[in-house]
Amino acid sequence: MIIVMRPTASEDDIRLVLDRLAEDGFDWEVVRGAERTVIGVIGTGFPQDYQEHMEAMPHVESATRITKPYKLASRDFRPVDTVIDVNGIKIGGGDFVVMAGPCSVEGLDHVVGVARSVADHGGHLLRGGAFKPRTSPYSFQGLGEEGLEYLAEARRQSGLPVITEVMEPGDVDVVERYTDVFQIGTRNMQNYPLLRRVGEASKPVMLKRGMSATIEEWLMAAEYILAGGNKNVMLCERGIRTFEPMLRNTLDLTVIPMLRRLTHLPIIADPSHGTGKWYLVKPMALAAAAAGADGVIVEVHPDPDHAWSDGPQALTPANFSDMMRGLEGVVTATGRRMHPIPAVA
Amino acid sequence: MIIVMRPTASEDDIRLVLDRLAEDGFDWEVVRGAERTVIGVIGTGFPQDYQEHMEAMPHVESATRITKPYKLASRDFRPVDTVIDVNGIKIGGGDFVVMAGPCSVEGLDHVVGVARSVADHGGHLLRGGAFKPRTSPYSFQGLGEEGLEYLAEARRQSGLPVITEVMEPGDVDVVERYTDVFQIGTRNMQNYPLLRRVGEASKPVMLKRGMSATIEEWLMAAEYILAGGNKNVMLCERGIRTFEPMLRNTLDLTVIPMLRRLTHLPIIADPSHGTGKWYLVKPMALAAAAAGADGVIVEVHPDPDHAWSDGPQALTPANFSDMMRGLEGVVTATGRRMHPIPAVA
Amino acid sequence: MIIVMRPTASEDDIRLVLDRLAEDGFDWEVVRGAERTVIGVIGTGFPQDYQEHMEAMPHVESATRITKPYKLASRDFRPVDTVIDVNGIKIGGGDFVVMAGPCSVEGLDHVVGVARSVADHGGHLLRGGAFKPRTSPYSFQGLGEEGLEYLAEARRQSGLPVITEVMEPGDVDVVERYTDVFQIGTRNMQNYPLLRRVGEASKPVMLKRGMSATIEEWLMAAEYILAGGNKNVMLCERGIRTFEPMLRNTLDLTVIPMLRRLTHLPIIADPSHGTGKWYLVKPMALAAAAAGADGVIVEVHPDPDHAWSDGPQALTPANFSDMMRGLEGVVTATGRRMHPIPAVA
Amino acid sequence: MIIVMRPTASEDDIRLVLDRLAEDGFDWEVVRGAERTVIGVIGTGFPQDYQEHMEAMPHVESATRITKPYKLASRDFRPVDTVIDVNGIKIGGGDFVVMAGPCSVEGLDHVVGVARSVADHGGHLLRGGAFKPRTSPYSFQGLGEEGLEYLAEARRQSGLPVITEVMEPGDVDVVERYTDVFQIGTRNMQNYPLLRRVGEASKPVMLKRGMSATIEEWLMAAEYILAGGNKNVMLCERGIRTFEPMLRNTLDLTVIPMLRRLTHLPIIADPSHGTGKWYLVKPMALAAAAAGADGVIVEVHPDPDHAWSDGPQALTPANFSDMMRGLEGVVTATGRRMHPIPAVA
Repeated sequence: MIIVMRPTASEDDIRLVLDRLAEDGFDWEVVRGAERTVIGVIGTGFPQDYQEHMEAMPHVESATRITKPYKLASRDFRPVDTVIDVNGIKIGGGDFVVMAGPCSVEGLDHVVGVARSVADHGGHLLRGGAFKPRTSPYSFQGLGEEGLEYLAEARRQSGLPVITEVMEPGDVDVVERYTDVFQIGTRNMQNYPLLRRVGEASKPVMLKRGMSATIEEWLMAAEYILAGGNKNVMLCERGIRTFEPMLRNTLDLTVIPMLRRLTHLPIIADPSHGTGKWYLVKPMALAAAAAGADGVIVEVHPDPDHAWSDGPQALTPANFSDMMRGLEGVVTATGRRMHPIPAVA
Repeated sequence: MIIVMRPTASEDDIRLVLDRLAEDGFDWEVVRGAERTVIGVIGTGFPQDYQEHMEAMPHVESATRITKPYKLASRDFRPVDTVIDVNGIKIGGGDFVVMAGPCSVEGLDHVVGVARSVADHGGHLLRGGAFKPRTSPYSFQGLGEEGLEYLAEARRQSGLPVITEVMEPGDVDVVERYTDVFQIGTRNMQNYPLLRRVGEASKPVMLKRGMSATIEEWLMAAEYILAGGNKNVMLCERGIRTFEPMLRNTLDLTVIPMLRRLTHLPIIADPSHGTGKWYLVKPMALAAAAAGADGVIVEVHPDPDHAWSDGPQALTPANFSDMMRGLEGVVTATGRRMHPIPAVA
Repeated sequence: MIIVMRPTASEDDIRLVLDRLAEDGFDWEVVRGAERTVIGVIGTGFPQDYQEHMEAMPHVESATRITKPYKLASRDFRPVDTVIDVNGIKIGGGDFVVMAGPCSVEGLDHVVGVARSVADHGGHLLRGGAFKPRTSPYSFQGLGEEGLEYLAEARRQSGLPVITEVMEPGDVDVVERYTDVFQIGTRNMQNYPLLRRVGEASKPVMLKRGMSATIEEWLMAAEYILAGGNKNVMLCERGIRTFEPMLRNTLDLTVIPMLRRLTHLPIIADPSHGTGKWYLVKPMALAAAAAGADGVIVEVHPDPDHAWSDGPQALTPANFSDMMRGLEGVVTATGRRMHPIPAVA
Repeated sequence: MIIVMRPTASEDDIRLVLDRLAEDGFDWEVVRGAERTVIGVIGTGFPQDYQEHMEAMPHVESATRITKPYKLASRDFRPVDTVIDVNGIKIGGGDFVVMAGPCSVEGLDHVVGVARSVADHGGHLLRGGAFKPRTSPYSFQGLGEEGLEYLAEARRQSGLPVITEVMEPGDVDVVERYTDVFQIGTRNMQNYPLLRRVGEASKPVMLKRGMSATIEEWLMAAEYILAGGNKNVMLCERGIRTFEPMLRNTLDLTVIPMLRRLTHLPIIADPSHGTGKWYLVKPMALAAAAAGADGVIVEVHPDPDHAWSDGPQALTPANFSDMMRGLEGVVTATGRRMHPIPAVA
């Protein structure tokens, strides 16, 4: 940590800071500049808000942490990419994966139909919501465990592993019985009891970014899961809130190559929620691939006009097929390949 | 709902929309303008995302909901201010209340000492965290139920009712045994299972605004609690995220008079979290009072430099006393009064 | 325009609104719903803030404009893509163009050297700043007209047309003598006297998006130029401000396919300013191409560590060459081609 | 400046940085920590983007500037408050001033009438726009010099000094002939040619904050004016852009006590533009006073429903009078007074 004193700081003010550092067990070096004195604190393991404490001391201008607050999520800690194996699909290994399916599970035939369609067009995982976070208490909240059963049946019939959302610690056990990957939604990125609970689970977790989260907050949330012992965490960029009233969200692709430098975790993009409009999904999926994402997750519905939730952003199977062809081109052009379909899924 | 067709829409495109409305059981009127046709849909009870569905139909330019999506929280529904009685303290009744205490409960003597200090200087409720949401898994997470016991003892000795945070549905029962008011933190504003659970509880709830939440999202979150049967909900503005790197948050006071028109629920301001710096707390507390808030919640600590969390934003008892004197002046100048202290608390 | 009355509006309140509409020369239709009355105002040519006026009337809940406030920039007005011819380079015609060069012109040899390097690797236009908007009055402000002369000489030697920034109305004439395309920078997107002045000029204009501008504000700024008679306007997305402290800006690619639907104007992306870090430029340039941009503008410098401005985001010639190869692949994969180099530039 | 090397940095990487520092004439001290090496660069006068240059060097983790980039605007440079004398009205001297008037000057009788009304109710300066920045090229753009003449006549009849906006360098001379204070609008906060030009003028300048500007950017813009020789600069908070769709802007009062620590310049709040709704103006004006502002600027119009611009946010004279009474109470309660009206204005 670097502590910068104000020009007005006296020797006594500096002494007060050094005494506090000594009291807390840290070493330091003092650098006296033309106008200001700077204290370099040596060590690691600062309390999370030690920086703010130091800034509250008299005549301290600023305190700056120089080590990242996340460890297990950091590429400094693990230089090699994490590869997550989901029933033979390797996420993060260089190949590109596609997760697709309906926003909400609406019925058995519905989700089985979508699953087959996704599999037919080369998708790798089936997404679908059984527990739905909805802004209004009066909206459809998902089919619950019944929906999970339908997803399991759709997996059996399509061969696609399943990813589905879990919303509270008390539901982790039941969701784990059915799903292959847990999804943590954007509103729950900082739901720490839930993060701790999936950190103890044995299935991989896809952690969506909070709507206004910084990269550091996101990686700290991943750190909660990793610290619990679950090493199979992937990150999902799903659009940030911006000032643009025409768009539900703005898919932030800049974050993808930036994350690549900072973390070893796989990175997925969600152009459906990231834009909110079906006609923006294909161009943004292709752009995510070009920016280096490990995969995309998109919404597919046979009849988006009658979907029970998020219809306006869902692709029809025909549009999904068109996107897959486009992705194949961009993925190949950037020196990678679409993940092959496992022989026996 | 108002549906505006594009200039390019044909009679068939319009017919398609009208058929869909008929299928869904709505009436309408068609207004044919110079360039565009507009369809006024008559009725209420639209599904939450009906607007987006309509916008996804061919040649529809836009669809606009004209009724508010929240009902119970709306002043249209209840024109008279809600007044919440907490052991004789009336929140929302025109009088101004002050909640104060440490960020985290650090021990019995600690919280009893702060409570007495708050009571001595005219505070009305004691705040203090036993379950703490922390950005880092490696930070102090609160004393848990032990902290709740200390809060209860501090209430006994100081006479101040207690407000403390609950973070997950499974903790609501234990927290309810000790607290007088539940606090829902900013990261949990859209934790729907938790909102539903406190909606079934018998104690009042203070709902903090999400860091980037709109007014409508905030009132929809309140609606979850109200819809569960708990009518004693107060809102707490605690600072929004802005582009300013010098400030942890920006206390948004504009929202206070705006909320006053939209909802009957009491409105509290938190200038401690809303600024992150103790020297901004007093001016912003006074500003909140001038803007019409029903009260403030602030952090007080006998030794902020050694607080276990959020020290930089805590007031010393002397600073708290100074703020109370300032508040008294502004509250009186705006034609209200500081809430009297109940004779037997 | 659609005016929605509050549930509390009486017949007199409605009459007041209708009288005002009659006074202002508009027709209307009244739709009486279950709870509210809605007034559909027929006509166009509303004053810009007529909506806000209506919302300020008693018992009016909201007023919504249903026509776009921009006309000449709208695809409704001109369904066919605008193609801008810059010395034989066609911008917006489906082919992909690359503009490259130093942030600041630092000297004759410097800019001639960069120009040759850009031309050698297949770039189409030379960018370079002679008048520089700098956050600090103490930073290098550009070489001024001397810099323009160097750019002209670099064009002569490399064959590349030149794009350079103009910062105030009084400089438009001198810049026009040297440049092939005017650049309007992000801080000047709403500098209306400047927009009006380049609207009277004969050279094309590239209008960068303001750091927090909405799409509508951006297109309204383009409208200022178009309304002045200059039809050759292209839009440049250069990164928006977000909450991410690690990034100078966040390149917003979602805006590209959205703009494509709304306007006929060519769309360029600037991944150098849009990220602020050279190692993010290539992936974001490729992503912009995949999202459908008509071209990119990037910074190239032979020795970025010693550039006079914006060095950290500049590509070396070797990195530029690598980006060009990557772009070729993605552009081809998305069914387009890199713009051919004119035989005699 | 503090340069933090990555854990992976070798001695050669460190040497490279030190050589660059030596080349640029700086001294340093090296602090070797457990994991990382930190270089404290001694000196001032770093180029504006030296930080980013350093961050672009190999194996540099971060570089942090420890001196503020603004000097003349800083309270470190001038500890005593700047007091600006406008015809006997002292702005920044502890007393509270009120500037009021119409958004646009609409005619002679109109502005004289408003001026008299403002003076009658205790206002100190007359505001009014003759050159108007408008989002649409088709909106009313102001009366120009004719409007300035009407303002001058209104000053003669009311005794109130005048503040009015200047939008381009070429208009500074003509505006200076009529006005007492220049206003620089939010869209022009970083219009550097304009800032430089008013920096050479002899009249005071009120600099509005850009819609998404940080405090540092705002003070750097003030620095442009101060560096030109004009020491009479006041800052005006006029609302920032947030995610709230119900509000045109969000008046950021947190910035007021923060600025007070950082700068000696007077601070004004604009609750009219800062909210966009007349019914929010009074509470936010009172809140601004409670937060410590030196004054407010508000819009007053005899007939807001028929104002040529910004009617929805204008106060009627009756509402203005009500706000003035409220302000008197809050200003007095916070230990200050309303500025007395000069005997001969």
